[in-house]
Amino acid sequence: MKEIRIGIIGTGVMGADHAAILAEGVANARLVAVQDFDLGRAETIAASLDVRAIADADALIGDPDIDAVMVCSPDGTHASLALKAIAAGKPVLVEKPLAASLEDAEAIIRAEVDAGRRLVQVGFMRRFDPGYREMKQALASGELGRPLFLHCVHRNAVGPDYLTSELVIANSAGHEFDIARYLLDEDITSAIVASPPATRNAPNRQPQFILLQTRSGVVVDIEVFTDAQYGYDVRAELVCEEGTVALDPSPATTIRARGHDGFRTPADWRPRFRQAYRAQLEAWTTGILSNTPCGSSAWDGYMAMLVTTACLHAWKTRSRAAVEIPEKPFLYR
Amino acid sequence: MKEIRIGIIGTGVMGADHAAILAEGVANARLVAVQDFDLGRAETIAASLDVRAIADADALIGDPDIDAVMVCSPDGTHASLALKAIAAGKPVLVEKPLAASLEDAEAIIRAEVDAGRRLVQVGFMRRFDPGYREMKQALASGELGRPLFLHCVHRNAVGPDYLTSELVIANSAGHEFDIARYLLDEDITSAIVASPPATRNAPNRQPQFILLQTRSGVVVDIEVFTDAQYGYDVRAELVCEEGTVALDPSPATTIRARGHDGFRTPADWRPRFRQAYRAQLEAWTTGILSNTPCGSSAWDGYMAMLVTTACLHAWKTRSRAAVEIPEKPFLYR
Amino acid sequence: MKEIRIGIIGTGVMGADHAAILAEGVANARLVAVQDFDLGRAETIAASLDVRAIADADALIGDPDIDAVMVCSPDGTHASLALKAIAAGKPVLVEKPLAASLEDAEAIIRAEVDAGRRLVQVGFMRRFDPGYREMKQALASGELGRPLFLHCVHRNAVGPDYLTSELVIANSAGHEFDIARYLLDEDITSAIVASPPATRNAPNRQPQFILLQTRSGVVVDIEVFTDAQYGYDVRAELVCEEGTVALDPSPATTIRARGHDGFRTPADWRPRFRQAYRAQLEAWTTGILSNTPCGSSAWDGYMAMLVTTACLHAWKTRSRAAVEIPEKPFLYR
Amino acid sequence: MKEIRIGIIGTGVMGADHAAILAEGVANARLVAVQDFDLGRAETIAASLDVRAIADADALIGDPDIDAVMVCSPDGTHASLALKAIAAGKPVLVEKPLAASLEDAEAIIRAEVDAGRRLVQVGFMRRFDPGYREMKQALASGELGRPLFLHCVHRNAVGPDYLTSELVIANSAGHEFDIARYLLDEDITSAIVASPPATRNAPNRQPQFILLQTRSGVVVDIEVFTDAQYGYDVRAELVCEEGTVALDPSPATTIRARGHDGFRTPADWRPRFRQAYRAQLEAWTTGILSNTPCGSSAWDGYMAMLVTTACLHAWKTRSRAAVEIPEKPFLYR
Repeated sequence: MKEIRIGIIGTGVMGADHAAILAEGVANARLVAVQDFDLGRAETIAASLDVRAIADADALIGDPDIDAVMVCSPDGTHASLALKAIAAGKPVLVEKPLAASLEDAEAIIRAEVDAGRRLVQVGFMRRFDPGYREMKQALASGELGRPLFLHCVHRNAVGPDYLTSELVIANSAGHEFDIARYLLDEDITSAIVASPPATRNAPNRQPQFILLQTRSGVVVDIEVFTDAQYGYDVRAELVCEEGTVALDPSPATTIRARGHDGFRTPADWRPRFRQAYRAQLEAWTTGILSNTPCGSSAWDGYMAMLVTTACLHAWKTRSRAAVEIPEKPFLYR
Repeated sequence: MKEIRIGIIGTGVMGADHAAILAEGVANARLVAVQDFDLGRAETIAASLDVRAIADADALIGDPDIDAVMVCSPDGTHASLALKAIAAGKPVLVEKPLAASLEDAEAIIRAEVDAGRRLVQVGFMRRFDPGYREMKQALASGELGRPLFLHCVHRNAVGPDYLTSELVIANSAGHEFDIARYLLDEDITSAIVASPPATRNAPNRQPQFILLQTRSGVVVDIEVFTDAQYGYDVRAELVCEEGTVALDPSPATTIRARGHDGFRTPADWRPRFRQAYRAQLEAWTTGILSNTPCGSSAWDGYMAMLVTTACLHAWKTRSRAAVEIPEKPFLYR
Repeated sequence: MKEIRIGIIGTGVMGADHAAILAEGVANARLVAVQDFDLGRAETIAASLDVRAIADADALIGDPDIDAVMVCSPDGTHASLALKAIAAGKPVLVEKPLAASLEDAEAIIRAEVDAGRRLVQVGFMRRFDPGYREMKQALASGELGRPLFLHCVHRNAVGPDYLTSELVIANSAGHEFDIARYLLDEDITSAIVASPPATRNAPNRQPQFILLQTRSGVVVDIEVFTDAQYGYDVRAELVCEEGTVALDPSPATTIRARGHDGFRTPADWRPRFRQAYRAQLEAWTTGILSNTPCGSSAWDGYMAMLVTTACLHAWKTRSRAAVEIPEKPFLYR
Repeated sequence: MKEIRIGIIGTGVMGADHAAILAEGVANARLVAVQDFDLGRAETIAASLDVRAIADADALIGDPDIDAVMVCSPDGTHASLALKAIAAGKPVLVEKPLAASLEDAEAIIRAEVDAGRRLVQVGFMRRFDPGYREMKQALASGELGRPLFLHCVHRNAVGPDYLTSELVIANSAGHEFDIARYLLDEDITSAIVASPPATRNAPNRQPQFILLQTRSGVVVDIEVFTDAQYGYDVRAELVCEEGTVALDPSPATTIRARGHDGFRTPADWRPRFRQAYRAQLEAWTTGILSNTPCGSSAWDGYMAMLVTTACLHAWKTRSRAAVEIPEKPFLYR
């Protein structure tokens, strides 16, 4: 059993989190180097985890002792780094979004198609969450019949200051677009958006309600509320002909204290998907070893961006917008 | 303490159910007579409950020994019976819908306004359900802040054969329109509809997804699925600035048996709202005694019909439809 | 349909609560008079509910315009009042416990047996709680097989100052003894008690753990914790050969706010059993009208006292104590 | 980071399961060999996982290319294999029970004490379950105050044919004894047992109810029901001065179908603790690398056996039995 030697580009929240998970031990994977535009930050993490700090992202990608690359740097850099990894023939796990523009995303897809192999995975880790996998299995088992509705709720406790109504759609809803395509196994073809008023806690942005339909007509609705105050909360219910399957918050324990019976809802979103992040790393490295790409492909990342684009159009025009989907290259079928 | 003597017009499912609840004993209320276009059916029920069977609805309304009337006959007869009750100066509880056409509903409102007093209550019994009342109280307490989203789910196990896609909107969604107005205490001003495919269990009708917005911008979404197979299920979550309150299915017991941990979901919708039906009767008769109308007024019944009309328009045109609301008469303010 | 005219003796917490429920309206029942050793207290309630205040308990029992009597006065007075009601031939609902001593309880039973009819009901209202009734129905349906274990939890938020370790057994556990006999439909034959340390919130009394066995060997365990702080909480699970049925707290709504997802657990125990108290009154008066006694009989009240006696013996001797059950008079079979 | 090379002795249910988890990938751990008294069975597994099959357990323990040993062979062999591992200076993870007799357990403890270091860990994997860890953290946080009661439920769907009433205590309850000591961090000092009747599904054994008390008086009650039919179910609630924390079944999804709302309860117990088994392996190997023993020590395994002995005595004598605890050697403090 070989071990995949991993280098991480970008040691902000996501990069540092991935590094910590790798340091705890992921089968078949070993973190060997980190890079950040803030070299000091990279060096601090490198020292604490006993790995190398590398000053330059290109050097990390080119390093012969690094087998695979994780791109956790700012969105604007994703595309060029992914292209360099493809050029270097190295597997690359790009944090979402795949790119900062549709043109850049298309360039990545062209590069992969030209290279003739899938090297890019997009970090939509929910595909590795036990709950979403159970939902998909329940659907695949056939006992629920065909899907009809998918209700999604995405709530953060407190959104960052820079968040605008537009970014609530463009940034926060991305995971929902990908998981809807994953669960339903088909493309989203239209979008409508409705916006309730801004709240007193975040007067500069509105929560959003997104209504999608898939090619076969499944209705997908998404509440995106980045300032729900009480905690991070991701819920979903898939309603089918013969029954429904719902993502359960599934706390390991219930607390009865101080006048409440129930469970805590921490603001930090990372514990909720910790298992998914780890499973994603395991699947990614196992897939590299067995030469079997898994998870969200570059095409999936591009599709999430196309849905985002349609939602923004629908929001600005207050009307139903179509998602225009180009022909899918053979590589992704 | 006086007792209200009640006559029921129409002894189909709803009429028979109300009669049974009254027979079990409702404070301040006594069932004294029933009428049905099928006199035999009325006589059977009358005999079993030891009350009078009356052959003619007009005679029942005019009977001096009947203080108040319940209209549970077919929808097309609601308006004329309500108008006769108003003319007789008798309180009348009309099962939903208030009337079969907007014109008829407007006629009832004009008659009440001319009479100068509210005599009509529409049988939207959810306003008396402990769960919805708790939701309203949670909102009224102020601790949750202003409302933003109201997610509603209305599922039946198996719809009746005559149900069409249009009737799924026109009939099944009515309770949701009224309860949304009750909870949010404001009018609905626009509607959009999206329809997933028909199911193998009911190929002649599509489930419906209704997206409404209120005057202040609250987003209300409603899944109406009349053939969910697994049981009758009504759910709701009201999402506010500081937290959410959700209607809980709240079974009294949990069963662990035969490979399942959870609770049964019977197809019969009456047990779910049994307490609400009874509380509605108690509130209605108490309101009559104290001369304080409560519950849904004729105006509320008319508003539910206007929302229905907008939804049907939105569905047929696949676009957003406005709800055109006339000025509210002083009587209903 | 006749109406039962009710007089309440004792207007403390329980008496006032019953009076309020009757005033809200209970079918077939009308509160007509209240009595209290503190006449002023009785008069205040009487005035607010527009009923008579009667100075003397004997006068209330003897009043020809009072059909049935509720005894809510201090425990030490229960027996003599019940005996007087029996002597007067009037149905009497006695709050638990039936009497303050086994001798007094036996005297009541002798009086009933001599009178040749059941006039006494003991206020074990849980027998009318929808949850416990569902548990009993689940058992009666046969689908769960024979019972094996009954786990009971009885928690109060804060116990009264006068409560001692002995009273935790003697007072607080009574409802559990009766409901176990009701659910399992057989007698309890032995008892063991174990006591964890006293808590910092109530250093003068220990919580108690009571382990009972029924004639057929069913194991019943009861946690009695009168100072659980977080709220009033009554739970139970009946474990049978083929599955289990558990009493669910069944709140009507769930609240997500302030870092919690769950429901509130108020300290006040009355709302939890409000429906049961009302249903008990309805069943009592309906039973009087139809001459069909229901609920806990004097014998059941006596049995709960015998179990209490055995538990106190087991506690003092730190050993297993037998419950000595005399032959059951024919009247109670 | 070094890798621990692991050999498994015994490839029955538990051994095969551990092998599968290791093969999926556990950080810092690599399965290199398996042994079974049925060599063919060992060879089949070895071939499928691409590791060595070793014919002889002693040879496996002595193999210089094996760093650590897992003992998953029949109970009667545990002690001699553990002693050989200690003699070889190799860390050994022994499936529960530690030994088949108290004498054998004491011999292991003497051997470890003589060796001057802890090499033995007992496979009480619940200590690594996220739910139990949350319970322990909740207690450690101090917000719940001191513990008073620990309610435990251990249910299997169907017990093996050979199971007797005695073995229900001796085998099935072992995990509960260890987890109670882990959660409460103190010894159990007395035991009482009560037995409901045997069920129609398993007429040759009785379910058991075990009542323990710890040194400080905490009351621990355990239902052990090996034939609960509906599925594998492990529950617990720790009741403290200021609140309670309960182990939640925490399914990842809820299913609404076929008249039920809830979740499936599979008979297979391995999925429930899959995460715990894996975490146990990770902690064990990490502990070996860092020279920090974790999990249940040989002493803990011995304590579980002493509690078992007291329970059997209590059961046979139908009385309270004391747990006689020898002085704890310095090595285990």
